[in-house]
Order: sequence, then C-alpha cells, then structure tokens
Amino acid sequence: MSTEKFVYVFGNGQAEGDAGMSHLLGGKGANLAEMTRLGIPVPAGFTLCTEVCGLYLQKRRYPELLKEQVNEALLKVQSAMGAGFGSGDDPLLVSVRSGARVSMPGMMDTVLNLGLNDHTVQGLIKRTGDARFAYDSYRRFVQMYADVVLGVDHHHFEAMLNALKQQTGKVQDTDITADEWKSLVAQYKNKVLEVTQKPFPEEPQDQLWGAIGAVFDSWTIPRAITYRRLNEIPESWGTAVTVQAMVFGNMGTDCATGVAFTRDPSTGHNRFFGEYLINAQGEDVVAGIRTPQQITLEGKRLNGSTLPAMEEAMPELYKELYAVQNRLEMHYREMQDIEFTIQRNKLWLLQTRTGKRTAKAALKIAVNMVHEGLINTREAVSRVSPESLNQLLHPTLDPKADKRIIAKGLAASPGAATGRVVFEADEAEQWAATGQMVILVRDDTSPEDIHGMHSAKGIITARGGMTSHAAVVARGMGRPCVSGCAGLSINMENEQFSVGGVTVAKGDWVTIDGSTGEVMLGQVPTVPPELSGDFTAFMEWVDGFTRMKVRANADTPDDARMARSFGAQGIGLCRTEHMFFGAERIIHVRGLILAQTESDRMRAIDKILPLQRSDFAGLFREMKGYPVMIRLLDPPLHEFIPHDEEGQNEVALVFGMPIDKVRERVASLKEFNPMLGHRGCRLGISFPEIYEMQVRAIMEAACQLVKEEGFIITPEIMIPLVGLESELSYLRERVVAVCETVMGENSVRIPYMIGTMIELPRAALIADQLAKSGEFFSFGTNDLTQTTMGISRDDAGPFLQEYVQKNLLPKDPFISIDQDGVGQLVRLAAEKGRSTRPEIKLGVCGEHGGDPESIHFFEKVKLDYVSCSPFRVPIARLAAAQAVLA
Amino acid sequence: MSTEKFVYVFGNGQAEGDAGMSHLLGGKGANLAEMTRLGIPVPAGFTLCTEVCGLYLQKRRYPELLKEQVNEALLKVQSAMGAGFGSGDDPLLVSVRSGARVSMPGMMDTVLNLGLNDHTVQGLIKRTGDARFAYDSYRRFVQMYADVVLGVDHHHFEAMLNALKQQTGKVQDTDITADEWKSLVAQYKNKVLEVTQKPFPEEPQDQLWGAIGAVFDSWTIPRAITYRRLNEIPESWGTAVTVQAMVFGNMGTDCATGVAFTRDPSTGHNRFFGEYLINAQGEDVVAGIRTPQQITLEGKRLNGSTLPAMEEAMPELYKELYAVQNRLEMHYREMQDIEFTIQRNKLWLLQTRTGKRTAKAALKIAVNMVHEGLINTREAVSRVSPESLNQLLHPTLDPKADKRIIAKGLAASPGAATGRVVFEADEAEQWAATGQMVILVRDDTSPEDIHGMHSAKGIITARGGMTSHAAVVARGMGRPCVSGCAGLSINMENEQFSVGGVTVAKGDWVTIDGSTGEVMLGQVPTVPPELSGDFTAFMEWVDGFTRMKVRANADTPDDARMARSFGAQGIGLCRTEHMFFGAERIIHVRGLILAQTESDRMRAIDKILPLQRSDFAGLFREMKGYPVMIRLLDPPLHEFIPHDEEGQNEVALVFGMPIDKVRERVASLKEFNPMLGHRGCRLGISFPEIYEMQVRAIMEAACQLVKEEGFIITPEIMIPLVGLESELSYLRERVVAVCETVMGENSVRIPYMIGTMIELPRAALIADQLAKSGEFFSFGTNDLTQTTMGISRDDAGPFLQEYVQKNLLPKDPFISIDQDGVGQLVRLAAEKGRSTRPEIKLGVCGEHGGDPESIHFFEKVKLDYVSCSPFRVPIARLAAAQAVLA
Repeated sequence: MSTEKFVYVFGNGQAEGDAGMSHLLGGKGANLAEMTRLGIPVPAGFTLCTEVCGLYLQKRRYPELLKEQVNEALLKVQSAMGAGFGSGDDPLLVSVRSGARVSMPGMMDTVLNLGLNDHTVQGLIKRTGDARFAYDSYRRFVQMYADVVLGVDHHHFEAMLNALKQQTGKVQDTDITADEWKSLVAQYKNKVLEVTQKPFPEEPQDQLWGAIGAVFDSWTIPRAITYRRLNEIPESWGTAVTVQAMVFGNMGTDCATGVAFTRDPSTGHNRFFGEYLINAQGEDVVAGIRTPQQITLEGKRLNGSTLPAMEEAMPELYKELYAVQNRLEMHYREMQDIEFTIQRNKLWLLQTRTGKRTAKAALKIAVNMVHEGLINTREAVSRVSPESLNQLLHPTLDPKADKRIIAKGLAASPGAATGRVVFEADEAEQWAATGQMVILVRDDTSPEDIHGMHSAKGIITARGGMTSHAAVVARGMGRPCVSGCAGLSINMENEQFSVGGVTVAKGDWVTIDGSTGEVMLGQVPTVPPELSGDFTAFMEWVDGFTRMKVRANADTPDDARMARSFGAQGIGLCRTEHMFFGAERIIHVRGLILAQTESDRMRAIDKILPLQRSDFAGLFREMKGYPVMIRLLDPPLHEFIPHDEEGQNEVALVFGMPIDKVRERVASLKEFNPMLGHRGCRLGISFPEIYEMQVRAIMEAACQLVKEEGFIITPEIMIPLVGLESELSYLRERVVAVCETVMGENSVRIPYMIGTMIELPRAALIADQLAKSGEFFSFGTNDLTQTTMGISRDDAGPFLQEYVQKNLLPKDPFISIDQDGVGQLVRLAAEKGRSTRPEIKLGVCGEHGGDPESIHFFEKVKLDYVSCSPFRVPIARLAAAQAVLA
Repeated sequence: MSTEKFVYVFGNGQAEGDAGMSHLLGGKGANLAEMTRLGIPVPAGFTLCTEVCGLYLQKRRYPELLKEQVNEALLKVQSAMGAGFGSGDDPLLVSVRSGARVSMPGMMDTVLNLGLNDHTVQGLIKRTGDARFAYDSYRRFVQMYADVVLGVDHHHFEAMLNALKQQTGKVQDTDITADEWKSLVAQYKNKVLEVTQKPFPEEPQDQLWGAIGAVFDSWTIPRAITYRRLNEIPESWGTAVTVQAMVFGNMGTDCATGVAFTRDPSTGHNRFFGEYLINAQGEDVVAGIRTPQQITLEGKRLNGSTLPAMEEAMPELYKELYAVQNRLEMHYREMQDIEFTIQRNKLWLLQTRTGKRTAKAALKIAVNMVHEGLINTREAVSRVSPESLNQLLHPTLDPKADKRIIAKGLAASPGAATGRVVFEADEAEQWAATGQMVILVRDDTSPEDIHGMHSAKGIITARGGMTSHAAVVARGMGRPCVSGCAGLSINMENEQFSVGGVTVAKGDWVTIDGSTGEVMLGQVPTVPPELSGDFTAFMEWVDGFTRMKVRANADTPDDARMARSFGAQGIGLCRTEHMFFGAERIIHVRGLILAQTESDRMRAIDKILPLQRSDFAGLFREMKGYPVMIRLLDPPLHEFIPHDEEGQNEVALVFGMPIDKVRERVASLKEFNPMLGHRGCRLGISFPEIYEMQVRAIMEAACQLVKEEGFIITPEIMIPLVGLESELSYLRERVVAVCETVMGENSVRIPYMIGTMIELPRAALIADQLAKSGEFFSFGTNDLTQTTMGISRDDAGPFLQEYVQKNLLPKDPFISIDQDGVGQLVRLAAEKGRSTRPEIKLGVCGEHGGDPESIHFFEKVKLDYVSCSPFRVPIARLAAAQAVLA
C-alpha cells in the first residue's frame, strides 16, 4: 500500500482522517481526527502517517512531497488557531508526539512547546502577559528538545537548575522568577553547544523537523523494540507523528486541566468520573504534587473531598465537558478515558481512548451497555479480558490493610490466604483437622504432598516455576500459591525458614498473595470474592457464542462440584493417581507395587477397588450426566513408594515382607529420568492388574448408578502416554474385556468410550494409526511441551527465566502453548486423527486448556473442548467465546 | 493378480516354473523347478501356488479348478516316477511341504511318506523287498500325519513306542522288527480314532488333501505369525505347498543321503565340501546319531576323518554330484547349500539354496567370485551382511577353550576380553597403569567412569540395556561390554559381586564375550582379529558404490586414529565433554561450574583452555584434513560435579570456597529429569564463557596447525540441543565473534562452519527456521528417539524388553531407528532444512549411524553422511553401499 498523501490535517471541525485509520494515523492521531469531525473542540494539528516512518527509517530521508504537505498543513493549523508559527506576536506552539497503531505507553518520545525561541517567547509574553510562564515554558522546551532530539542527557539541565536554586536559596520551581528562568534558558543553550558542538536550533522549522525525525527514530530504540517483541507488534507497522497546537491549562485561574472516565473504572457504575486541577498542566494531575479535585459533585461526595468540584467551580465548562464525554461514549460505544485542558475558559479535548478498568468494572460496563442498548452481547463478550476474571474468583487482600512483605516469588496460583506455617504435608493435614488455618511451606512439592496441599489454605515453595508441581496442583485446587520464592531457605531441623534476614518458625502466621507473589508476615485480612448478577448474565451470553465445550480437570467430588459451579460441561481429566494418596489407601497402593506374590497383589487390589469405585461414583453423581474422562494410572510407580525408613518399615510390617526386599524394590524403581520412564500405559502393560482394577471400579460405579439411581453415564476411559499403535490396541482389547465382564455381571449395558492422551511427539506423528483404536484424543500439552521442546518443567526454572529475559523465548511455553512447535504437532495430530475417524472427539487437558491465547489456537484447529482447573473454567469459557468471535 | 493356474508341475526335465517365481512357488518350489529345467535329477512333483493359500485362508475353501489341476499334476508325477498313487504294486509316496517366498526355517509343517496305507505298504514291500523299512516308514507317516494334520499330540505315540521297547526289552529303534512296527501302526491308528473320534484316513487322496490344508493352516499358527512379525514378512504373501515324490536313502547300502556346500562355508575357500551317510535318511545326517562321512577326499584329509569319503566309496555318483554342484553354482552364481539322496545308485537332488556362511567366508567367496568372473563387484558388495563384519573386527574367544559361564547379559559391545575384576573407575585406571588387565564391573556407568572404562579391557554392568551409557561408550571405544547382567549383585563394601550362587572378589579373573553376552570365570584365551587382503579389496569396491560418507564418532586422537584405520572419512561427532574427565582437568571443570566469582571462573578457564586446544590439535592432526565436527559441551553440569564428600572437599580446598557453598551449589544443580534439563546449548547461553573457551580452543588449534604445519582444516562447530531458532542465532553470533577474534590474533583465515544437532522434535519441526543460521544439521537420533517416543534410554530396560517380547515393538528403537515416528521427523527436517538452504550438510551421529537398517533409511532421505563408533565404520560403509544398490 503506497499513497502520495502523507499528512492528514485536523482542526476547526474538519479532519482528513477518522477513528478507523489508526493503522495510518496511529491511535492518537485517528482519535483526534475523529473528535474533530464530531465537532468536539480539539486544538488543530496534523499527523504524518505511519508510511513515512517506514520510508524514513529505510532510506534515512523523507518522501519528496512531505515537506510541501507539512507546510500546507501548518498553514491550516495556524489559520485554525489564529496564531503564527514563529510569530513574535502570537506564536503557534506545537507538541510533537508519536502514535503507533496500538498504544505503547512511554515507549517513544514526545516534544512539547515547540516553536519557542528568543523571538517567539516575546510573543508568548505579549499574548499571556505572563513572562514567568513564558520563560518556564521556554526552558522546559529547551530541556526536552535537547534530551529527546539532540541527545543531551537531562541530568546536565537538572544540575544547572539545582545550582540556580542553591545560589538563590530557593526550594520550589514555583519560587523561581521569570528572569531566573530566562538566564537558565541561556545556560541550557550553552550546554547544548558545548555537548553537541552545535548551537541550539532557533528556527521553528528546524526545531519541527528535528523533532519529527527524533520521534520516528524512537521507533527503533531498544526499549521500543523490546516492547514490540513482547507484545508481538510488527516492526513494519511504524509510528505516526502528530503535530498539534499547544494549549495551556496553566495560564491563570481561568485555566485548568484534567483527566476523566465516562464511567467509574473501579466499579463500572455509569457515572462520569474524573479529576482536574485549576491553573495546572496535565502532568500535575498525574504526578500527585497537588491534590486533584473531583470533577462531579457525586465524585466529591463519594470520595469525601473537601475541595470544590468542577461542577460547582466551573459550572458552564462542566456542562460542556459533560456533554462532550457523553457524546464520546455514545459515539465510541465504549467507556472513554479523556484528557482535557481549559485555556482561558475554553475547553479543549486533547485525547480520548478506551479506558482501562478493573475486572469488576469491565463486567458491569459490558452488562450495563447491553442493557442500555449501546452494544450487543457479541460486543460485550469481546470486551472483557478473560484473564481479568481471575480477580473475581479468588479472595483478595483487603486493600486497606497494612502489609509487611518479607519475600516475593512467582504469582503461581491467584488469591490470598493467611495461616500458620507448617513444613510437612502430614502436619498440614493434622493441624487442619483441628481447625487451624495453615500455610504449607516446602522446597518443592510432589504428589506425596497432595493431602497436605489440600488441607492448607495456601502454599509457598522455595523452588519451581509457574508450572511446577506446586503451582499446577495449587491452581487445580484453587489454593493460592507462591512458588519459586528465591532466597527462601528452609531449615527442617529447627522447623523454621528464613528469607531476607527474617526468620519464621513453625506456627507463625504468614499471609500470601498468589496474585502478586508476595509473602507477608502476620495475618493480613482478606475479602471474599462475590460473583455478581452481572457475572451470571455475562457468562450466559458468553456460552451463547462458544463452539468448544469447556470441561474441568477434577479428581474428587469436591473438585467436580466446584467445577460445575463454575460452569464446566464435564470433566476432561480425572487423574486417578491423585486418588491413591489418601492416608488409608496409600499403604495398599504401596503393597500393590512392592508385592512379590500374586496373592499379596490381589489382597492389595481388593482393598483399593471399593475405594476407587466410590471415588468414581462420587464423580459421576456430581457431574449429573455430563461426560467424565478418566485417565488410568499415569505417573511412575516410585512416586507412590516410601522413600523413608518409616514408610518402608510400615510396608514390610503390613505385607509381611523382609525389609531388605522392600528396600531392594524401592531402589530398583529409581529412575534417571522418571518423566521418560516406566509410567503411563507402560505401567498398564507391565502391571495389567492395576488398569483392570481401575476399569472395573469405573464400570462398577457406572453400572451401580445406572441401575440404582437411573443415571445417564458415558464413562470416557483414557490411556496415558501412548506412543505406539500397538500399545493402544493392546490395552483397548483388555479394557473392553473388563467393561464387558462388569456389564455382564450387572446385567446393564452402558455406552463407554476408550481413547488416548496425545502427549508424546510420536503419538502426534502417528495419530492416524492411533485413531483406529482411539475414539477420542486428549492433548496432554504439558507433557507434549516437555517432550517436543526437551524441557523438563520441573527443571526449567533456571534457564527459562533467562530465556525470556534474553528474548530467546517470547513467553513461558508451559503457560501459553508454543504454536510453532508443539502447536504444529497438535494441528498435525488433529488432521491425522480426523482423516482416520472423522467423528473423533478432540480436546486438550494440559494447563494450556485454561490459557486464553492457547484457547484461540485450539479454536483455530477446531478441537471439540478444552479442559482446565475448575477456577479457570469461566476464563476458558470467555476465551473460547472470544476465539469464535475473533 | 489372479490366475486360473494354481498348480505347477516339475519332473522329467520339464517344469512349469523357474527360480524367478518364488513369490508364487515359494523358494523351495521355485528352485526345484529351476533344477528340473537344468536337467538335474529331481524327484517329480508339483507346487500349489501361494495364491491358493490366500484364497483358502480367507474363504476356507479351495478355488474350483484346483482339484482338477492337482489330479492332472498327480498323473504327470506318477508317469514321471513310474509309480502309482495308491498302488498296491509300486506305490507313489509323496512329501507335502510348505514353501514361503523367503525361508522360514522350522516355522511351518511338513508331512513325509504320504500315500501309505495297509494296501500300499504291501507295494512298498514288494518294491523294496524290505518289510521292516516299509512298516517303519508307515509308522513314521502315521505319527507325523496324526500330529501335523489331525492334531494328535506326538507324545501319545512316543509313549506307545516306549511301552513296546519295555515289553520287548529293546533299546534302539533299529532293533525293532517289521512285525513290531506293524503292530505299532495299528496301535497308532487306534489312538487316532480314540482322540479324534474318526478313523485314520486310509485313502491316499484324503491323506493328500488333509496334508495340503494343514500346511496352508500352518501359515497362521502363532509361531509363524511371530516369526513373520519379527522378520517383517507380510501376512498376505502366504505359503506355497510342494507335493513331491519321495525317494529313500535308507533302502540299503546302494542308498545314501547328504548335504553339501559348493564352497567351504567356514573359510570361503573354493572347494566342494559336504557330508553324507550310506543307508540313511536326511535327518540322520543332521541329527548327529551316526558320524557323518566326508564327501571329498580333500575334506577327509582336512577333517582328519578315517571313514571313506564318497569320492572313494561311490566314485561314479561322486562325479555326477560334483558336476551337479558345479552346474548349480555356475547357474546361480552363488555358493549353494544342497541336499541329495541316492536311492539304489541313482542320485536325486532334493533342494538347493543359497548357503549360509561365516563372515570370513562371505568375504572370501565374494572376492573370489569376482576374481573368477562369476559375479561383478556390485553383486559382491550386495552379498555380504554388514553386521557380519563385526565378527572380523574384534578379538574372539578361542573356540577350542573351555568356558565356565556364570552369567549372561546383553551382548552390548562385541569382542572378547579377559581381566581381573575391579569395581571402581579410579581403581581400573590405577591397576591398568601398573600393566594389569582389568574388567570394570559396575551397576551402571556414568560419564565419570569414562577413564576407568578406557583403562579396562572390558566392562560388565548389572543394569542398562543395549543402549545404556556403558553400552554406547564401550562400543564407541571398541571395548567389549556385557550390560544388563540381570541377577548380578555388587557388594561394594566387601568388594565382590555374586551371580547365580557364584561370588567373585576384586582381583579375580573373569572373561567376557561381548558378542554373546556371556560372562565366564577365569581366563579364557582369545584370538585376535585379522583383517585379510580380501577385506581390503572388498572395502575398496564398497567405497566405490557409496553415496553417503561414513564418519566416526571420536573424542580423542586415539579414537581418531582407529577411525581412520577403519576408513572413516571424517569425525561426525567429537563429544568435548569426554575430554573434561581426565584426572588433571576435572578439578578445573568443577571449579568452573562451582565458581562464584568471575576471577575464579576465569582462573579455571585459563587452566582448561590449553588442554582443550591440544586435544583439538591432536584430533585435527590425526584426521589429516578430513572434516572434524566438534560438539560444544552438552551434558548437564551436575555430571561433572563431585557428589561425594572427598570430591567436594577437594573443590573447596583448591578454590578456597566454603564447603557449605560447594554443597549448596551441588544440591542446586540436582535435576529431576536431567535429560530434559539444563544442558546443551542451554548451558552455552547460561555460561557463555564455557562455549567461548571451547570455540577459542578449536580455532587456536586450527590456526596453529594451519600456520605451523600447513594443514587444511575446516572445523565444524556444532551447537547441541537446539530447540529454538533464537538459541541458534544467538549462539552463532557469539561463536562467530570468537572465531573472528582468534583468526585476527593469529593473522590467519580458515574456513569454518557452524551448525546444530537436530535432537529435539521441535528442532525437526522448525528446521526451515534453523537452516537460516545453521550450515549443517547432525541428527542426534539417540536423543531424538528419547524425546519423540518419550522413552529414557537409561530407564527403558524393564519395559522395552517386555514390549519386544509382547510384540508391541518390532525391535529396540535405540538400535534401529523408528522409521514411522522418529524417521518421520528426520525426513521432515531434511526437507525443511533443504527448503531454506539447499546446500545444507545433513548427517546423523546417533547410534543409528552404525545400524545397517537405519542406514538404508538415511540413504532414502538422502543424508550426506552417517557417523558411528570407529569399530562400526566398516559396517556402515558396507551398509551405505548396499543402500545405494538396493
């Protein structure tokens, strides 16, 4: 796309662009044009379009027509503002700002007050009658221009200002006189000459072109490049440059400046909300040097402000502003964040953009706007960030409370929790049993800690990343968790931990905020989440748009109940191994694994079978006919066996085995890389009795419920870690045999499905073969990421962080799916699977099932469902809807 | 393909088939037809083609025309042999045998002497005048038929024979009289009636059709199915059935039977060689009940036989046989293994096929036949099994020695070795330094044991498979190794191991045979390998056909020298980490890893750099301009650090670090899955100084040799474990910088290449991106297999064996590449890499680089080279040539 038009003018109610042209004019320029078209008072200006940026950065010179077009535009601006660029009577001053297609806050440079020189400053004095104001503006301009355009470090100027203050014994900038500012301007210019070996440009045209070049150049400064890489903004987009007439809110008491939101950004209530300051510049409102005043009387009341509201101080201007903001919101049909300046009783709008808001506000605004007829439900659903729902679903720290932060780790599982420190899972369980609130503190956790994690209110680990065992399990349970708390060192002997010089003993109170990663000493009060009617209404609209179903990963009836309450449409992953860790059952599981005789093994199985059966019955009951996908035993056996002497002795005692044999067997199960070891279906093949028991338990529970309670159930039996077609067909045959036997015993027929995880690259590569025996695929993208990328999630901490820092990886691939690599396999497997069995059911049950960006990808490859931890179900529902709408 | 012709007759010098029709007639039937056509005396017969098998097994009935065609064929056979099927005067007896397209020895069933009944047995007596022979043949037929066709277990018949012997007090079958055999036939038939509830079929036609059906059915018995799966023979091929007139070598002293080879199958010498027995049946020669006699006088002399040779006992028949074997070899242009029978002074050939031979013989025969003008070099190269060369390259146990085998493990690295048992690598090194021969015995080995493995004559491990660390490294070094010696238990405290009730102490002598997996007590003498002139000539022909180059994996100048002597055309993988384990350097490597200050780190680097430089100089010198591919440090750091207190104290002392710090650092480097942990290029990114040092050492060595010795060198620098394009481009930049710096310092320019391993699925998936920065790819198919299949090589032992046993896997994927899965990625990466960079150099450096079947695959995807351990280089050269010829 190439055009001969490079400059777009706006002002006096006419504009050459509009809000739809942000790709050419940048967000800022496009909105200024749009506001001008709407007849809203906007200081005139013009925008050099983004194409110029590309051409300039490529060839280091401007297109031929540009100079002419800028000059023409400048003439129009002068005429619109009734001021002359370079005039000694009524000088036009301009701002020169960058404006990319999407907002890149603070990433690029800006120059204000451009056009001032020794000549035009006199005009400013004439026009304003305020020499101090004029010279203050002048020195600000020189400093900013020297810094941004000429590359003279601003500390030079700050030093000179400080020297002046010391000489004159003055403290505040406001104490400095016009003459003193004037003398400083001269000093600044000398410094520029000294550093750059060139005089400061006096000619406004030179100043203008210098500033334009500097803004374009700022597109390629390192922090901008980094920002773009992280936010996936293409380099080729370039930035626009907007040159706009300056207006001043600090010319006297008939001037003001302010920022406002068309609705309350904290609560979402439909009330105009904002702050302003009389005789001030924009940055004064933001910087907090003066206490800002409320714009509306309602705001004054709600905030308990004693300063006059604009509504009372400047009633006419307030009315005008109110009308403008109303106009803008109606026009954009979205809550706006606006900036305005009042210069000598005239209102000017300087910016409008979509306003940021809290999750709660986002929801309320979306719902209200639908009710107000401003937007339709489709738009409402598109506008709420899925991730923001997280804020609504977990307890949070009371924002008013004092916090003594002693450590900061990763925000591994959101929500706040407070409790007393314990260091062992068993202890957590015991204390919790007596009604204590506990926080479990560990170096890292393993499946053996599950019962303790369940009993704790929150978890802290010294090691492990966002996707460590602790983090994953905690998110699954909805337990707040701070993981990878570097510097935290646990002394198990003394039962205490220390971090940053603070020592915390067992039983001491701590509080964690899993949404920020903060660990605090003592009890910090929390506030519970409340799911409003807005939430319910909104989520109903959401579900109207989704194509993919959203299921939950749930291992217990409790999990299942919570999942249903969050709207899960089934269980996508029940990890049966989590059922093995209860205190009463782990001993039998250990017996099963360590048994050396058939009879010992069967004895153990007989004990476990009824427990598993009631587990499954509980799950089916909670899910009330929704599908339940159950994964047969997956992790390495050695995760179940006792590594300590006490546990080994117990097994020896209970099963009458010599302790030597127990130790020998424990040692023989040790693996170098358990992740790639004897686990998943490999166990099912080596120890057929385990899978047979599990399948029997599933089918007996299902038969019982169907017969006794009239349920509709289609158990989905999932074989993990399949890599070979032969594994799946071999096990399928055995699973079918057990299913048929149990149904025969119960004289009931129920439908059931058998499928496989796709979690090894080979499984994806031969998915066409696997679809012969597999009626469904569930992508285990956690393990698939580990094997495809060759990265152990548990060991990745040290280098993954470094990779993200060094921009080698855009983001943690365990959080958002690696579309190029792992995603390529998911797509391939989906295609291959469907080529063999068109009706095959495809879903994902890795952590990525709850990640919005990944969900967009899964929608693209047309999976049938995603499954995630219960607390992320609403997020996934929203992301799934947005993926359809995208 | 369908034909209306199902039956092919041969006999009387005419045959309807020939040797080219083995797909229809089976190998046996085709060769019988061919011999008949050549005018060689073959008992007449006919073959039911393989298509009948498919039709019969599918529909359980025969094609319409079959019966008619069989009857016609039978008439021709009767006429050719001058005997009548079912005749009471001169009965035609036939054998009914299976014959698949390829030989499936012993897998399917055979029936002999068919056509006998109470009526025809009289004819046999008339014709032979030998009632005892006739009834013996009859009872053999009934037993065989009942067993094979009627499913009556042969133990019934053996029991009856034993009972008869007890009754009569006779010991040998030969003592039994005609009447006794006759009575036994009646008993046998009663038993058949009793078991099957049907009388034994008397009618020869019924017998014939029963036998034909049974042979077809035997195509689907379990052992045949298993054999086909293991040998990748398609089920659809089916078997042919050959019905052939019986001739008898046991009708009197004018009868004989024998087997012979057209050349000596042990040495390959061009001399007719074989054994025969007068008045005997074929199985007597094989079974070893009677001492067989030599056929030739030369054989009699060479074997020190005192029994008359056929050449002297039956000079006319010998001449005839000699002419026939000569004719057959000239005709087939291949050494033949023949079976013959002489019935009443008439020679009959019953079989000819390509003869099995030792590796040495294979080589000599191939070379001789080329010299004799019988075959061309292309055929010679195609005929030697690459794997068989293994026999030629390693010392072997003296076949005459006594062996006391105490254990059997996996034949992990071929060759025999004898030495005294030690249990620790250091000890192995110390003992070896004093001139002792040692065998290192370990539970398993790790890189820390390398120096001990190098010092030992052989290695035994209790754990680990064919591709365990011990096995891989031992093969690389050419050290014999027995791995995974189940049941071997080491007691480190008492310094002894025990296995199967035998206890062996440190210092005791043991001998291992790495080609069979046997462990023997004491010193068993070995014989060294000798590479004959035949070998040299042959390998020259081989290299004339290869397209792929063959390189070696070599880490030291010694390895490189050996690799060159075996004809390696470069080094495909130098594992620099193996250079880190020398006693004088490991301490500095440890210092480097554990250092906490820059100066400590640089101090360690300064010590290691000159050592690495001289390592590389040595390699370059040995390789004399052949390419050398050097992999930068790959394995996890914790492999280098001391896990024992002594080692930790040493580091603390040498580097002046607090011991606590050392322990802490050691602990912090522990990983759950080191295979997927902080290793490969991840180390290069975290510890840039290590890679910089290595690249500097490589380039300094190269510059020095170029300047001082006038070498031509193109170092190939390989980055391991790349999964992201950013990793490779990031490191490439740094490697280039060091290379340029070093060349600048030395004022020399030398070409160098930078490339990457492809050993992660993701690397294969994004190979098009990697080829931007990578000038070559080396497929690390060991790790690629581990990650693609999700199988840790070190942990796979317990289930991989089970998988192979249960036919879930055709073979160990670490030995022969998994073409469906891992191969799919190799093919994809090759295509993608070439799409970006058509001239990219592609090779493989995993264990598969030395596996013939894998090499065929690599030829198919057109890799540029394979690299394997030095001892496998000749095997790989041959396989690479055959892959081209295939």
